[in-house]
Amino acid sequence: MELPKSLQNLIEAFERLPGVGPKSAQRLAFYILKQQEAESLNFANSVLDVKSKLRLCSKCFNVSEGELCVICSNENRDKNILCVVENVLNLVAIEKTGYRGLYHVLHGVLNPLYGVNVEDIKLESLLTRINSMVLDNTSTDDNHHLELIIATNPTMEGESTALFIKRQLEQNGLLNKVKITRIGRGLPTGADIEYADKATLDNALMGRVDF
Amino acid sequence: MELPKSLQNLIEAFERLPGVGPKSAQRLAFYILKQQEAESLNFANSVLDVKSKLRLCSKCFNVSEGELCVICSNENRDKNILCVVENVLNLVAIEKTGYRGLYHVLHGVLNPLYGVNVEDIKLESLLTRINSMVLDNTSTDDNHHLELIIATNPTMEGESTALFIKRQLEQNGLLNKVKITRIGRGLPTGADIEYADKATLDNALMGRVDF
Repeated sequence: MELPKSLQNLIEAFERLPGVGPKSAQRLAFYILKQQEAESLNFANSVLDVKSKLRLCSKCFNVSEGELCVICSNENRDKNILCVVENVLNLVAIEKTGYRGLYHVLHGVLNPLYGVNVEDIKLESLLTRINSMVLDNTSTDDNHHLELIIATNPTMEGESTALFIKRQLEQNGLLNKVKITRIGRGLPTGADIEYADKATLDNALMGRVDF
Repeated sequence: MELPKSLQNLIEAFERLPGVGPKSAQRLAFYILKQQEAESLNFANSVLDVKSKLRLCSKCFNVSEGELCVICSNENRDKNILCVVENVLNLVAIEKTGYRGLYHVLHGVLNPLYGVNVEDIKLESLLTRINSMVLDNTSTDDNHHLELIIATNPTMEGESTALFIKRQLEQNGLLNKVKITRIGRGLPTGADIEYADKATLDNALMGRVDF
């Protein structure tokens, strides 16, 4: 049967979302059809609101409704620690651990094969930010409490982006002014050594800590 | 982190959809955030359109943009066969088989435990419809080419709804004027007899056909 055009449109709109197949799209569209009027109105408005109200924080590029995001505008956050993440979802995950420093969201990783180069992600602004952090910090004696945690994903692209950042700091003579760390690698909680892949075990052994 | 309110609203709106968990809702909301403005606008409008433009066909209760749905207003459909289905999704599935008769969408099945009674689904209108089909048909000699296919699902509720419909026709003296059939039961295509449950095998044996 040819479904009514408006219903077909909604099914297709759902299908374009990631991870939603034709069957799910159909089910979701029929659900909307049966939903209370107010509920659907609220749903449609939520979609529009996100597009009209949200922008990126001018400092760390987290999502925000104002000029600065809730993290950057929070006076209680530790301004001497900066955690570099690939995207906002990763920021949200790290935020759940109770981390109290600031962030820098790259909005991507270097991936020359797919045409993602230095100018396509927020790398230049990261360098500018670290530079001004160092400058702001010259009044104190010990510069070493500035820390940059590179928390890009443990993938090939994430690793090369991390390396790129390190090299940039090196070239700008910032290595002795900022401590650079990389998130730990090893076995995830609940894993079984028997089934761990070689690369993970290599990292787990290299990253062993005093006990 | 507290996400911006508009983003949080969208995540919650997605979470209320069936089969969408917290993680998926988050991923979908961030996808909308990154989507082209026009695309999201289209999505929101599709949701609103479905609510404002669609209604139920006054004859068969299929979804429709006009008074009658595309099936009821199609002159080429066989008006002597009526297929009773639980909902529009089931109609869509049967429509794919190439069935050329008409439908009647119940919008539910009898389920007294959950408070779904005769007046809650489109049963009365079904009886009225069959009655007028029979009346329209008295001019011809052979009444028996009127057929009612009961295609409610092979569940307890679907079965009892089917039985209820049959009994209603009986009480109204329509049994000899309309041929009642029930969709076939047995093994689904590609199934393995070894793993079939007893009820399915019982039905497959009872429903055996000449070969």
